[in-house]
Amino acid sequence: MTNRPLILVSNDDGITSPGITALIEEMKTLGEVIVVAPDKPQSAMGHAITINEPIRLMKVDLHEGVEAWQCTGTPVDCVKIAIDKLLTRKPDLMVSGINHGSNSSINVIYSGTMSAAVEAAIDGMKSIGFSLSDYSWDADFSPVRPIVRKIAKATLENDLPYGTLLNVNIPKPDDGNIKGIRVCRQAVAKWKEDFDQRTDPFGRTYYWMTGKFVNMDHGQDTDEWALSNGYVSVVPTMFDLTDHQRMGTVNQWGLDE
Amino acid sequence: MTNRPLILVSNDDGITSPGITALIEEMKTLGEVIVVAPDKPQSAMGHAITINEPIRLMKVDLHEGVEAWQCTGTPVDCVKIAIDKLLTRKPDLMVSGINHGSNSSINVIYSGTMSAAVEAAIDGMKSIGFSLSDYSWDADFSPVRPIVRKIAKATLENDLPYGTLLNVNIPKPDDGNIKGIRVCRQAVAKWKEDFDQRTDPFGRTYYWMTGKFVNMDHGQDTDEWALSNGYVSVVPTMFDLTDHQRMGTVNQWGLDE
Repeated sequence: MTNRPLILVSNDDGITSPGITALIEEMKTLGEVIVVAPDKPQSAMGHAITINEPIRLMKVDLHEGVEAWQCTGTPVDCVKIAIDKLLTRKPDLMVSGINHGSNSSINVIYSGTMSAAVEAAIDGMKSIGFSLSDYSWDADFSPVRPIVRKIAKATLENDLPYGTLLNVNIPKPDDGNIKGIRVCRQAVAKWKEDFDQRTDPFGRTYYWMTGKFVNMDHGQDTDEWALSNGYVSVVPTMFDLTDHQRMGTVNQWGLDE
Repeated sequence: MTNRPLILVSNDDGITSPGITALIEEMKTLGEVIVVAPDKPQSAMGHAITINEPIRLMKVDLHEGVEAWQCTGTPVDCVKIAIDKLLTRKPDLMVSGINHGSNSSINVIYSGTMSAAVEAAIDGMKSIGFSLSDYSWDADFSPVRPIVRKIAKATLENDLPYGTLLNVNIPKPDDGNIKGIRVCRQAVAKWKEDFDQRTDPFGRTYYWMTGKFVNMDHGQDTDEWALSNGYVSVVPTMFDLTDHQRMGTVNQWGLDE
């Protein structure tokens, strides 16, 4: 038995990614760690779950003193199967990442990293998704590790009500020094689609999804502003998607008449 | 050329599902219809997009007078490729469904049907996800068609600001008469995981995801309450996940000190 906090770790880049390794190492300084992460990259899976095929779990020995499992499912599957089959007590914290690439603004919707954290929050865990604004596999996570540790420690020590989790994005440190940490709102932004059209060897058309990020938000209180200006962004994030403000608007349509 | 409204239709049960057929037929009474839907069932895909493999599109002739395409991607992929490659003007409305099964409360997070509608809303279209509380493939959509038409028509005729879409769930009509339409909030609910553990012919363990729906919300203003009491639920839904109310809470943690 231990009185140290229990911390569940997952991600969407897969259990062998450098980002999750950095996260596991930092969480080991804060508590007992259990890892359940995808056995392959699962970026952009959003909140997908696997209902039409079976899921497998395999115990792996990747980090000294850490129970770790790789799962054939999506990031959300990893959290669900951990809850049902692996955890013997409720984790004090769930952390997801560190993602190779930003999950700021609208990217929160597409992100497997954030969806794993959302799933943990739905189950009632405190949870955080961490992302670094650097898509490369060999991104340098060492300068961001103290920030990750600081935010995880504060989350363990403070109250966070049911229904709220944190979306933490960290600017690439070699863009200059990290200036600080800002609590932000999600910027209004989108991806402008640009599918790359090609022809296969059999003469048939196929497409690769590409796109251009468009920030439509000029506010200085957004995650995009923070990242562009050298700050870590922390967005309190929720899974109640009700637009409470617009309930009155739609009520005025008189749908029930 | 036509001055009729342009309506984009998609779903997550696939282009051959009875639910999308019912939706297409009703939308034909309101405007010009273009369909881009998955070529196979894609339930529970959430907001997944396809970035690691190519996507294909094939024109199909399923509904008289309707341009229809089946797509190998997810529901969100369908909307994205429609925007980039197929639409010659901005649709006046996007509708998704009619889903075979409820997408009320927390199911909005997992639903491919709703994610297609969310993607359209991100792009600036008015959009609605429609779901019927009946999972069977041969569900009877005829009694719900007038309701779908009524809500779609009202959405075309009224203002809905950028950032808001509608999540419409319809109770199974043979549970009794449908009593009316209620504008609701998303109930606080979750799925309690219950993975079914089995052994394959080679002696290895595998799991099927199952679960039990748990409604933790006793409010009478929720979508779950409406559906249980014979009402159609209409939840104004948004993709700004910021928990604005908790920004102050997290600011008090002093992360920037």
